[in-house]
Amino acid sequence: MSNSYGKLFRITTFGESHGAAVGVIVDGCPAGLEITTEEIQEALDRRRPGQSKITTPRKEEDRVTILSGVFEGKTLGTPIAMVVNNKDQASKDYSHIEHAFRPSHADYTYTAKYGLRDYRGGGRSSARETVARVAAGALAAKMLQQQGISIQAYVSQVGKIKLQKPYTELDLSQIDSNIVRCPDGATASRMIGLIEEVRDSLDTIGGVVSCVIKGVPVGLGEPVFDKLHAEMGKAMLSINAVKGFECGSGFEGVKMRGSEHNDQFYTDEEGNVHTRTNNSGGVQGGISNGQDIYFNVAFKPVATILQPQQTINDAGEDIELKGKGRHDPCVLPRAVPIVDAMAALVLADLMLRQKANKL
Amino acid sequence: MSNSYGKLFRITTFGESHGAAVGVIVDGCPAGLEITTEEIQEALDRRRPGQSKITTPRKEEDRVTILSGVFEGKTLGTPIAMVVNNKDQASKDYSHIEHAFRPSHADYTYTAKYGLRDYRGGGRSSARETVARVAAGALAAKMLQQQGISIQAYVSQVGKIKLQKPYTELDLSQIDSNIVRCPDGATASRMIGLIEEVRDSLDTIGGVVSCVIKGVPVGLGEPVFDKLHAEMGKAMLSINAVKGFECGSGFEGVKMRGSEHNDQFYTDEEGNVHTRTNNSGGVQGGISNGQDIYFNVAFKPVATILQPQQTINDAGEDIELKGKGRHDPCVLPRAVPIVDAMAALVLADLMLRQKANKL
Amino acid sequence: MSNSYGKLFRITTFGESHGAAVGVIVDGCPAGLEITTEEIQEALDRRRPGQSKITTPRKEEDRVTILSGVFEGKTLGTPIAMVVNNKDQASKDYSHIEHAFRPSHADYTYTAKYGLRDYRGGGRSSARETVARVAAGALAAKMLQQQGISIQAYVSQVGKIKLQKPYTELDLSQIDSNIVRCPDGATASRMIGLIEEVRDSLDTIGGVVSCVIKGVPVGLGEPVFDKLHAEMGKAMLSINAVKGFECGSGFEGVKMRGSEHNDQFYTDEEGNVHTRTNNSGGVQGGISNGQDIYFNVAFKPVATILQPQQTINDAGEDIELKGKGRHDPCVLPRAVPIVDAMAALVLADLMLRQKANKL
Amino acid sequence: MSNSYGKLFRITTFGESHGAAVGVIVDGCPAGLEITTEEIQEALDRRRPGQSKITTPRKEEDRVTILSGVFEGKTLGTPIAMVVNNKDQASKDYSHIEHAFRPSHADYTYTAKYGLRDYRGGGRSSARETVARVAAGALAAKMLQQQGISIQAYVSQVGKIKLQKPYTELDLSQIDSNIVRCPDGATASRMIGLIEEVRDSLDTIGGVVSCVIKGVPVGLGEPVFDKLHAEMGKAMLSINAVKGFECGSGFEGVKMRGSEHNDQFYTDEEGNVHTRTNNSGGVQGGISNGQDIYFNVAFKPVATILQPQQTINDAGEDIELKGKGRHDPCVLPRAVPIVDAMAALVLADLMLRQKANKL
Repeated sequence: MSNSYGKLFRITTFGESHGAAVGVIVDGCPAGLEITTEEIQEALDRRRPGQSKITTPRKEEDRVTILSGVFEGKTLGTPIAMVVNNKDQASKDYSHIEHAFRPSHADYTYTAKYGLRDYRGGGRSSARETVARVAAGALAAKMLQQQGISIQAYVSQVGKIKLQKPYTELDLSQIDSNIVRCPDGATASRMIGLIEEVRDSLDTIGGVVSCVIKGVPVGLGEPVFDKLHAEMGKAMLSINAVKGFECGSGFEGVKMRGSEHNDQFYTDEEGNVHTRTNNSGGVQGGISNGQDIYFNVAFKPVATILQPQQTINDAGEDIELKGKGRHDPCVLPRAVPIVDAMAALVLADLMLRQKANKL
Repeated sequence: MSNSYGKLFRITTFGESHGAAVGVIVDGCPAGLEITTEEIQEALDRRRPGQSKITTPRKEEDRVTILSGVFEGKTLGTPIAMVVNNKDQASKDYSHIEHAFRPSHADYTYTAKYGLRDYRGGGRSSARETVARVAAGALAAKMLQQQGISIQAYVSQVGKIKLQKPYTELDLSQIDSNIVRCPDGATASRMIGLIEEVRDSLDTIGGVVSCVIKGVPVGLGEPVFDKLHAEMGKAMLSINAVKGFECGSGFEGVKMRGSEHNDQFYTDEEGNVHTRTNNSGGVQGGISNGQDIYFNVAFKPVATILQPQQTINDAGEDIELKGKGRHDPCVLPRAVPIVDAMAALVLADLMLRQKANKL
Repeated sequence: MSNSYGKLFRITTFGESHGAAVGVIVDGCPAGLEITTEEIQEALDRRRPGQSKITTPRKEEDRVTILSGVFEGKTLGTPIAMVVNNKDQASKDYSHIEHAFRPSHADYTYTAKYGLRDYRGGGRSSARETVARVAAGALAAKMLQQQGISIQAYVSQVGKIKLQKPYTELDLSQIDSNIVRCPDGATASRMIGLIEEVRDSLDTIGGVVSCVIKGVPVGLGEPVFDKLHAEMGKAMLSINAVKGFECGSGFEGVKMRGSEHNDQFYTDEEGNVHTRTNNSGGVQGGISNGQDIYFNVAFKPVATILQPQQTINDAGEDIELKGKGRHDPCVLPRAVPIVDAMAALVLADLMLRQKANKL
Repeated sequence: MSNSYGKLFRITTFGESHGAAVGVIVDGCPAGLEITTEEIQEALDRRRPGQSKITTPRKEEDRVTILSGVFEGKTLGTPIAMVVNNKDQASKDYSHIEHAFRPSHADYTYTAKYGLRDYRGGGRSSARETVARVAAGALAAKMLQQQGISIQAYVSQVGKIKLQKPYTELDLSQIDSNIVRCPDGATASRMIGLIEEVRDSLDTIGGVVSCVIKGVPVGLGEPVFDKLHAEMGKAMLSINAVKGFECGSGFEGVKMRGSEHNDQFYTDEEGNVHTRTNNSGGVQGGISNGQDIYFNVAFKPVATILQPQQTINDAGEDIELKGKGRHDPCVLPRAVPIVDAMAALVLADLMLRQKANKL
């Protein structure tokens, strides 16, 4: 019972990976926002399988339909339902995993929790659920964009290959200039090479998505429990395969002294407040301070590998299992639009919550 | 509007650092749990200022009173209100910070968000709020303990001094054997030395708290948004000064290949399911798998330093500011019971939520 | 932002009356419940337009499709999405109401609240939204039925024609034996006659639905704000056209003395506790006491009448308006399954909440 | 687990009738609202026992203390905790009800639900909990008053004595001019006489509180489930002893034809929209339409009577029980400020929610 995210800009997703459809209801999107199906589709196309040689070669179109809440091109203030039908998978054979508990997948825990599971391709635990998040996130991003807020996620690490430059030295307009979505061309080439190598050895690899958000007004984030970075952390950690989140100076910051780490305030010539450094990552006391928000999200390697693995079945017996079909050797390039989407959903919600703090 | 945490085991905290009191209402604690004021007090005593030479020397007793919800030694199923009075601070002088925006504090963001703030010692943004969390957490921990669940947080890093051993090689019963709460004596000594050095140079330092949870039954955690580690991450990131969270293999895990990272299942002689490794950190698909849960929490250096700093006041003018009074040079030792408390609150809530998944 | 009902058995509905579809996501239905599309359809068929001469003659099939959450005939514990497509209304002409504010409809208030509205047939404010509730309610009712709980709503008043017998003297198996859904044949005939007379005079009429719930275990209902009858009242008052709710002795009970009104407890031969009277309507202190729950729901006359009415348009100008098309002269017969559905949703939620009160 | 009301202006109450204290946390009150302890106390004084010869003669001062959230006379935007200590009742003897299940009280249902109860004077199920609501409601009312909204509840019926005039013919400034809080002097005298007669016969009597709200802007109320009158109904039904709620034409309206019941719109000379009648009670489609909101709330007779009654104890044995001490013969006069408070809390919440509907 937690298929919803957000308090005021609230999404509820549904769908198993091989059921009839996946989709989402967005409740709380303000009325009067202009939105088209094409804008939603564009975001989905960045997440779509089969988009490059380093993603799964599965071809899925993932066409979205808006069922409600939009009238004559504008949101009505009523719930916006969006659906993406799954392609007919009826013919496909899942008998090899029907009783297996795949290592580092959710087969075992879902079965233990619910007493049964849809074993076809991961069912509800599949990352296919994120289709719904990306559709909803596109709506949120449109709303934020009209408030001058931009969200830009990119791949900053694949395996041990790590982009050494801070985001301030990158040209973020180049994120989509290569298939791995790393804005630094040279690093991107090395990442692509690594992913190909990993794929050819029938293995998978993890990485880090970094995200930069510009234009956030001062004052978003609700202390004490729903701090901006706490909500952001939860949203990111709820994405499949995510194992870590850090904001601003993060884990590196623990090594610093207060005198180095503190962000000194100053006023510019127009009277606007800034900080000389931004170790805070744009958030102080859980509230945005007007500086760029930036954070990192750690993704583990994809659990499905095309090599034989030892595991057990639901009778507790030892079995050997081998991944079948077409899978991503590295989830990072396709994770970028998902991070974008969740960041948009967090901010859209906090923006509406901030409205409600005032008379 | 976010002074509550938890959906079913739900706490709501109140109080400014220099107001009349801080406290909490716990709503949803099941009836019939035996609890005494002493058990709550014990947890508060681990968090209390003035407990050692490396914490703030402020002496605060932090005596808790239970106002409701407990009758003849047992919880009633009704809300449990607990209050800790603040010592009279009336005489104290806060005029030096009344108009100042202290670097890396929440003065600026609170003022921007709310239009005014209680400037006395941080007000609501002060870590004094965590008194309420620790009191509530003690109640949650008691409930969990009766279900066989134990939570053990400890300091694993201060500045660059990092405990190199994994938790499995540590004797966690030794956490409270030294004032820094690191279960490895030799490392603890070095940490204490570093904190003293930092304190003597009028500076502060950050660090990492690690946490190990044993005895969690299979099945806790609510997919898709309220995954166990997503809830845990949010709870930790909501603690003052926290900038990062990682579960299981975390940021290190991104460097691994799937074939190394996957946790292979096996059945032991009693028919219980285990994994040979635990890179998952006890959570798969957002649901506990019965293995130990472990995670790391990164704390930035304390923002209040006793050196002069450049900043601005609420008129936007440049000022020089110097911390006054008695402050922690390193928050880590006192953060341990706070991490314990939040972990207990997360699990208590997920445990009740799992009850509701069944008929 | 309130298109959801329920805390643990939680529904979120979507859809405008003349949009593409109406539907619902049910989040929190326990896993393992057997359910078929036919069982859902059966409930929808009781609500369907065109079912008798005293309802609107519009023919709508209202075929439901389950998109997720059910696998091999059982619920998965994941969200259950259900959709009913609207028939193509594209050709229809709504220009006569595009700018009109129909009396006692929501045209004016929606426009004021949201700045725009879907004017086609009421849009989101149409009672067509209750299709989604009835579908979700059928699922809840199935769950309750397996726990021995039955819900039986019926029409007890139309205009001034009021069923004089208390429910204990009625044969509730006869509810569907006539088209007005009043279990007393003679009264039903008079009600039908009145509705026909009203319809022929191009007018509409209100009435009361009564509801009896048997088999509710002791202990459901969450004090202090989510008392069983408070939740039930809210759920009923959220149905289109409802203006009143009373439980047990209700408005009549205010005339009684405590000595008459109090329900005396006794223990039967099997040791079960009962009350000799049931003025409490099965609820004491907000919690079910094991006796029958009963309540009344008042529905105003349908606002759409086929007579000319004076009103204004969205420019504030006086206009004359006349209802077009095919409408219900009295909503009561079709309201019965909606009351059933909402009652089931309330109890399903409270049943899961009660699980979470215990360790 | 439902000791909270409101989504954005959210209160959480605590306290048993004979525990240490009752109190409330208000989370979400906007910052900058001027409020004094005296304003809160004034509302509590209207609810206080011992205020007249027709209420319980118990003398309780019910002095409120604000523990947090208010600084230099203004709200901070942080949680506002308010506490009222209970007078020491330690010496009092409750042994006669320790094991008894009092008729039409919550003793039986609380014991069944929670497995134990605080038997001293009703514990959590006592109407003493409404102290907390009245304190919070005073804060909400202050906020509403600054927006031009006034709430006026009054007693319109005691037993069979019913005020025949509609509210539009009453002088609502006279509500507090007599001890029964009925604005019509002649009817008030008859009501007082009846209550005295009932009291002298050791019995109790029920009644109706009516409430009129003026100045509500168009647009409050969240369709579809959190309609203004649905939220209001729930709030009223959550008050101890309430058995019914009706808004606008209510149960009488069911007898009307649509052509009579519909509220015709017109535009006045200043261009403001009004309706010629107000059968809708100021709410259409769940949203306020700018007309007066009015509703009725039915209270059953007080369950505690000073006559002997037959009932059972917690061993299931027949016992005779007689009320002791000082109790209200009729709860209506003291219910007026509680209805005021709950109405204010509902509207304050909906007002903040409406802010969040807009960009």
